[in-house]
Amino acid sequence: MTNKITIKDVAEKAGVSVTTVSQILNGKGARFSKKTQERVLKLKDEMHYVPDFNARNLILHSSKTIGVLVPNIGNPFFSTFFRGIQTVCRNAHYLPLVFSASNDETTEKYYLGNLVERSVDGLIIASSSVTADTIDNILKPNRIPYLLFDRNQINDDGDRLQVDDYQGGSIAAEHLAKLGHKRIVVMMPKQLTRNLRKRLDGFINGLLQRGIHFNEEQDLVAAPLTKLGGYEQTDAVLKRRPTAVFCGNDELAIGLYRGLHEREIQIPEDLSVMGYDNIDLAEYVTPKLTTIEQPILELGETSARLILNRINDLQMSRQLVDVPVKLTERSSTGRPVE
Amino acid sequence: MTNKITIKDVAEKAGVSVTTVSQILNGKGARFSKKTQERVLKLKDEMHYVPDFNARNLILHSSKTIGVLVPNIGNPFFSTFFRGIQTVCRNAHYLPLVFSASNDETTEKYYLGNLVERSVDGLIIASSSVTADTIDNILKPNRIPYLLFDRNQINDDGDRLQVDDYQGGSIAAEHLAKLGHKRIVVMMPKQLTRNLRKRLDGFINGLLQRGIHFNEEQDLVAAPLTKLGGYEQTDAVLKRRPTAVFCGNDELAIGLYRGLHEREIQIPEDLSVMGYDNIDLAEYVTPKLTTIEQPILELGETSARLILNRINDLQMSRQLVDVPVKLTERSSTGRPVE
Repeated sequence: MTNKITIKDVAEKAGVSVTTVSQILNGKGARFSKKTQERVLKLKDEMHYVPDFNARNLILHSSKTIGVLVPNIGNPFFSTFFRGIQTVCRNAHYLPLVFSASNDETTEKYYLGNLVERSVDGLIIASSSVTADTIDNILKPNRIPYLLFDRNQINDDGDRLQVDDYQGGSIAAEHLAKLGHKRIVVMMPKQLTRNLRKRLDGFINGLLQRGIHFNEEQDLVAAPLTKLGGYEQTDAVLKRRPTAVFCGNDELAIGLYRGLHEREIQIPEDLSVMGYDNIDLAEYVTPKLTTIEQPILELGETSARLILNRINDLQMSRQLVDVPVKLTERSSTGRPVE
Repeated sequence: MTNKITIKDVAEKAGVSVTTVSQILNGKGARFSKKTQERVLKLKDEMHYVPDFNARNLILHSSKTIGVLVPNIGNPFFSTFFRGIQTVCRNAHYLPLVFSASNDETTEKYYLGNLVERSVDGLIIASSSVTADTIDNILKPNRIPYLLFDRNQINDDGDRLQVDDYQGGSIAAEHLAKLGHKRIVVMMPKQLTRNLRKRLDGFINGLLQRGIHFNEEQDLVAAPLTKLGGYEQTDAVLKRRPTAVFCGNDELAIGLYRGLHEREIQIPEDLSVMGYDNIDLAEYVTPKLTTIEQPILELGETSARLILNRINDLQMSRQLVDVPVKLTERSSTGRPVE
């Protein structure tokens, strides 16, 4: 425990009661003498008294906080996403509390439980491991508003920010097909989250429409969505002799870059590589990465706005926001050399 | 406000008083009938009642939280640093609250004030803009323990984690001098934080010891510690016709990489580039980045341990921990071609 200056300290020093100090500091001190009021206000400043927020919390069952659960704050996608949340929350005088859960259900449950104990006002859940069970047993009975970022399998009726992943996959397929690629590999995690599943479906159907066959059993290389994941699966990718690789996110693509550079395989001359997200890093790698752009900062800002709307009006109708994606063509994709 | 299930809700449903519920839930229910005890415990589960942490906070003036202020959570250095803090805090049952302050004093003050209001138990200040004034007027009077990560100018008597920046700069100079470089440029922000000043002093003295002259007015290119900062100052670097560049951090170096690649300047054949930090990305760029390695995860873990020690014993003597750094040689530095 800290030794924070309390209202009791101020009252003792001023020689008045705690109630007197409280009323004066809350602007309800008219019934006390001018002298007492001034003495209390002066002591408050001199002693650097900061009112205790917990007292307010206890009465209002609100802490003016928004919990944010992300799978990995080390991925620039999520640090940018959080930056957007931080800006909107600050304007609304809420404090966003972010936790990185490493795609681990136990960890997510731990932070979620902690946040509920601390009377968090709302939750933005951008991690994938939060289960329907957790939502039904912790969030719903305590009527805590939450916003599901479209990564998990839960088919609930809550507010939702929907990035058009199907379209994203479809645009990626169109881009690679138009360049003339026919042997294409996809890198994604083994356990597909809801949004990745849609991304993959859009991609496969996009290829099919252009007469290109994709066999999910053979042409999908499993890798976690990290740089290391992409790097470690380089050989698994090359074994399939593709002319192009579509990566589940930019971090994976950057990991694959490393593996290809180490093997002196040229991008895009020997192999075209495509990412997903458009994190700032995509422009800093060589060659610059062709990717599907998500408006990441905007996603964070919109998430914060939706959850604040919901906190202010629990009864309002369901909020569903669709977010479009687009192709950002750079230098990592080109025509295949046969 | 949320509609969290309160102890009052449980009491009403059970047909007993709030005090009765409180005592039963706190294991002091022996004086009530077995039937009442069972009814209350069953209702607690059925209603998914989560005790309110704020009540506890108010009594103990502790929130079991550690505030963490970083300049930029988007820099992998700080996301890894935070990961270390998160691990140690979790084991100690504290919740770490991180805020990214963008090197802006107003923003840092805002989050600091908010954290104090919320009875944060301690602070890890890894941002540079927190002033001595803020510490003297907010933290000290409220006796809130804080740990200064060695980035700011404040010469206080608090606990401190000291990374040996002077040695880091010195090792970097030795490496470049041994390769035969004589025309060297340094990229760092205009406003040097305490640790950067030491890094630069170590570097300059290291060069001097080897008979290489460095003119701070001419040979220092000012740039913020970001990828964009490094990229935008590429021409300013090249104008000085160096054979090697020592960057204040890895992000700067990666930004410079982009500028050099766009101008088809080869690293290290045309120009050697050296970073500082050894973020994970340093191995994923081409060529792999030679850098000074800081034990980032360990820095986070140690910071958390020091502040927890201090929270548990405000009277203990000053904690000063020295953290060594070392050279990690990769492929971005080589002999100059004259």
